[in-house]
Amino acid sequence: MPIEYDQLSQNDANFVPLTPLSFLERTADIYPEQSSLIYNDRHYTWAQTRQRCRKVASALKARGVGKNETVSIFAYNTPEMFESHFSVGMAGGVLNTINTRLDADTVAYIIDHAESRVFIVDRGLWPVLAQALQSAKHQPDIVLIDDEFAAPEEQAELPDNLDYITYEELLAQGDDDFTCQAPSDEWQALSLNYTSGTTGRPKGVVYHHRGSYLMSLGTVTSWSLPHSPRYLYTVPMFHCNGWGHAWTMTALAATVVCVRAFTPKLFFDLVEQHNITHFGGAPIVLNMLANAPAEEQKTFDRTIHAMTAGAPPPASVLQSMADYGFDVMHVYGLTESYGHILQAAPQPWWDQQSPETQAELKSRQGVRFAMMEAVDVFDEASDMPVPHDGETMGELVMRGNTMMKGYLKDDAETAKAFKDGWFRSGDLAVVHPDGYIQVKDRAKDIIISGGENISSVEVENTLYKHPAVGEAAVVAMADDKWGEVPCAFIETKVGQEVTEAELIQFCADNMARFKKPKRIVFGALPKTATGKIQKNVLRDRCNANG
Amino acid sequence: MPIEYDQLSQNDANFVPLTPLSFLERTADIYPEQSSLIYNDRHYTWAQTRQRCRKVASALKARGVGKNETVSIFAYNTPEMFESHFSVGMAGGVLNTINTRLDADTVAYIIDHAESRVFIVDRGLWPVLAQALQSAKHQPDIVLIDDEFAAPEEQAELPDNLDYITYEELLAQGDDDFTCQAPSDEWQALSLNYTSGTTGRPKGVVYHHRGSYLMSLGTVTSWSLPHSPRYLYTVPMFHCNGWGHAWTMTALAATVVCVRAFTPKLFFDLVEQHNITHFGGAPIVLNMLANAPAEEQKTFDRTIHAMTAGAPPPASVLQSMADYGFDVMHVYGLTESYGHILQAAPQPWWDQQSPETQAELKSRQGVRFAMMEAVDVFDEASDMPVPHDGETMGELVMRGNTMMKGYLKDDAETAKAFKDGWFRSGDLAVVHPDGYIQVKDRAKDIIISGGENISSVEVENTLYKHPAVGEAAVVAMADDKWGEVPCAFIETKVGQEVTEAELIQFCADNMARFKKPKRIVFGALPKTATGKIQKNVLRDRCNANG
Repeated sequence: MPIEYDQLSQNDANFVPLTPLSFLERTADIYPEQSSLIYNDRHYTWAQTRQRCRKVASALKARGVGKNETVSIFAYNTPEMFESHFSVGMAGGVLNTINTRLDADTVAYIIDHAESRVFIVDRGLWPVLAQALQSAKHQPDIVLIDDEFAAPEEQAELPDNLDYITYEELLAQGDDDFTCQAPSDEWQALSLNYTSGTTGRPKGVVYHHRGSYLMSLGTVTSWSLPHSPRYLYTVPMFHCNGWGHAWTMTALAATVVCVRAFTPKLFFDLVEQHNITHFGGAPIVLNMLANAPAEEQKTFDRTIHAMTAGAPPPASVLQSMADYGFDVMHVYGLTESYGHILQAAPQPWWDQQSPETQAELKSRQGVRFAMMEAVDVFDEASDMPVPHDGETMGELVMRGNTMMKGYLKDDAETAKAFKDGWFRSGDLAVVHPDGYIQVKDRAKDIIISGGENISSVEVENTLYKHPAVGEAAVVAMADDKWGEVPCAFIETKVGQEVTEAELIQFCADNMARFKKPKRIVFGALPKTATGKIQKNVLRDRCNANG
Repeated sequence: MPIEYDQLSQNDANFVPLTPLSFLERTADIYPEQSSLIYNDRHYTWAQTRQRCRKVASALKARGVGKNETVSIFAYNTPEMFESHFSVGMAGGVLNTINTRLDADTVAYIIDHAESRVFIVDRGLWPVLAQALQSAKHQPDIVLIDDEFAAPEEQAELPDNLDYITYEELLAQGDDDFTCQAPSDEWQALSLNYTSGTTGRPKGVVYHHRGSYLMSLGTVTSWSLPHSPRYLYTVPMFHCNGWGHAWTMTALAATVVCVRAFTPKLFFDLVEQHNITHFGGAPIVLNMLANAPAEEQKTFDRTIHAMTAGAPPPASVLQSMADYGFDVMHVYGLTESYGHILQAAPQPWWDQQSPETQAELKSRQGVRFAMMEAVDVFDEASDMPVPHDGETMGELVMRGNTMMKGYLKDDAETAKAFKDGWFRSGDLAVVHPDGYIQVKDRAKDIIISGGENISSVEVENTLYKHPAVGEAAVVAMADDKWGEVPCAFIETKVGQEVTEAELIQFCADNMARFKKPKRIVFGALPKTATGKIQKNVLRDRCNANG
């Protein structure tokens, strides 16, 4: 008969709700004089960062921010953005970071949907906000980040009658001795990130304290992060809270170098100047580094660790990175999963492979991070795991403690996403015999040609191997005979030329012939605010013209 | 007005009870062919370790082990011991590791108190168990670890009529496809560790799945553990589950080298042979290494990381360790806190200090691990934090998610330990101006000898059983080899006589041998006005004379 194990209950000494806010308290206690944030001439220690966060939290609380109240921030990766990852939660509120590339209409939608009580805005983004506020029903308090390091064209004019306070004025109103309003429940909301839905309005993805805490410790474990790394914050903090790294780096007493606007030259200078050890970036960032003018490039005789997410890094880019001294790990995640939850975790034997094979191995999305319970690929008909054959496609599904609470005010989409105990990503993937997952396509990006599935990503990857191809996007084009055929849109590299016939032949030579594009269109690619290529626009274009 | 953040609820996709058992599933999935355990000629991969654990779990379940059922293990650091850290939990049960140095009477007490359903015993410990079973009311199923690498004198004879099964037979009965019985609640009991209580009988400290999971990720973060370390398991797994490292090392896909019986020669050989990167050990272990015969010593031109707990490592020992190539971190913890929760975390400027100053800095118990919420020192009168002056003493208190559920079947002691939201350690400490905690005096009645806790009350109780003993008081006496040893002060009954040697032998015969006093002093005992024995006076006396 079971004995009294269950009679021992939780109390304040043995149960504390998990929250990443605790990392700041610990790090500031133990490493008060260590450098926390660097942004141009602004240098802070961990004691100062905590003090600034406490003061802002106190001032926010005085303005009515408390549990489940939203504070929006529309800003670049400046110290204020980093601090908001703590101050808002310390006041009990929910941090809502907004993509700086969004249009006024979408920002207005977010303000109303999130019911923002306070809106922190970088002066450079004021014009967009001003327009948004004209249509928003909800009118939050305005806090202005007046960044002395912004370019002259970003010093937007403010209307004379604008009711606002600057960030530093807000901070000055705050109380030094403010006590962090730690959550009484680790399931409490910590942040709200809008994801560019594939259709219509963005959805509000809600994170909880428990998830962000575990995301941080899981990232330390699975990315082998050392104590006190020197981290260059190139990932925008409005993407999944910068992949959660604001919290993770605080847990490690890192030194974080902030970047308002990325350029390869600035990147290389900062890496050298601040002895950077880690950074993260979308493939476009790696691409820009790989293609930087020779006089801006710098190589390093130490290993610098990079994470990249969004698309598989091509072999040529990986090779450029290795030449610089960068060790790149490809990861995969979604806004709904707090960012990265799969990684192309290297195996000891990979080192002995050819660069091409290594690039192929590293291009897979890989295996789950330590904090994820399960990631699998389910056959769409049977909803059972697909065989590990590297060929059978199914939907990528996942479950674990770094999955969102749900979509704010959208029970229908939440229920649809969390079907039968799994989050349904909508991405199509295979599982290789070694258990590594490879995403083949977004569900809608599959081209079905003569009964065969063609992954547009695969065609794109082949096109990227051609030296003249800068960017490539492949979509389905209606075809009388085959149903659909691949149509490729290409931006060539500066100074490079190639013909349609040459590229089609190149594809035919480098992949199964039936997958080769039937048509190539040259020109600039249309993109969303987040930099995603707008395939729906391309689809319309080729089918209208087709 | 707060909005709908709280309406997003937990489901199987976004909430999974935390358990360290998940580490084995992940590591075996991703690194199936990587070396998991090495013990002499026995080598396992992570796929094999998982398979063995599943089979044992399945066989345990078939024998009735389920939620809140205890499986005791009385064994050395062999693979079976490591595997039990997973198999028992996978069957849903609670793992109870028992100190191999305990006497039969205490083992019998534990069997009855824990209501052990299955008892796994190393053949070398059978004689103690056999004696224990004669007095125990509870009769568990016996599983025998028949270790081919045990010394000949450890191959105990078994009675012909003994009803038992060997560990490998048990395993062979199990099912390959067994599904881990993951806890439905992360507060569920995972393990039970008996600590030598101050009142004689040991107390059963209960760990939960949540705590052991967080202990592992917090250890990775605060000890900067890399991926795939090579870990020498010199810390007995019966001490706080070997400081939780069985689970931690699994999370990292480490290679764990098992050691049945520690000797300096074996230690140096294994470190060299298996390219060990990390190990842990009580100060006695470091001491033995420092004083090893010259021909057994080996030095390494790489850094090997060591954790030590139980007492501050002396400067001379730290110097010897540095000469070998070992970087030692001093940590502090209790059975009640899952092991280490404070660490003498190095600051960048320590490196520039003299060896003496460094030793002094490193000898402090330090600052909290990442998973601990708070550790402080409270004035005993006011129950408020003491000033950070390095002088004012108070009681060391703590709270966080790696504190026990409580003491099994002991509500009074549990309530006493968790007073007003803090766990009360009973240790006296100061806080230095830099926030580092230093323990000045332990809960007075515990003697730490060679890393083992000895309850002075238990020794006194044994002494009282001798017909000549009128009054007895046992205190810690400093000892070069063991750190501390018990010293007993005795008032004989009127007209009775006994010698020092007779009393020491009496203790050796009536309790675990390592607990026997090393010295007996006869005479009147000093007492307070209220008749309490003044142990501080005795402590001063034996250490002055020592």
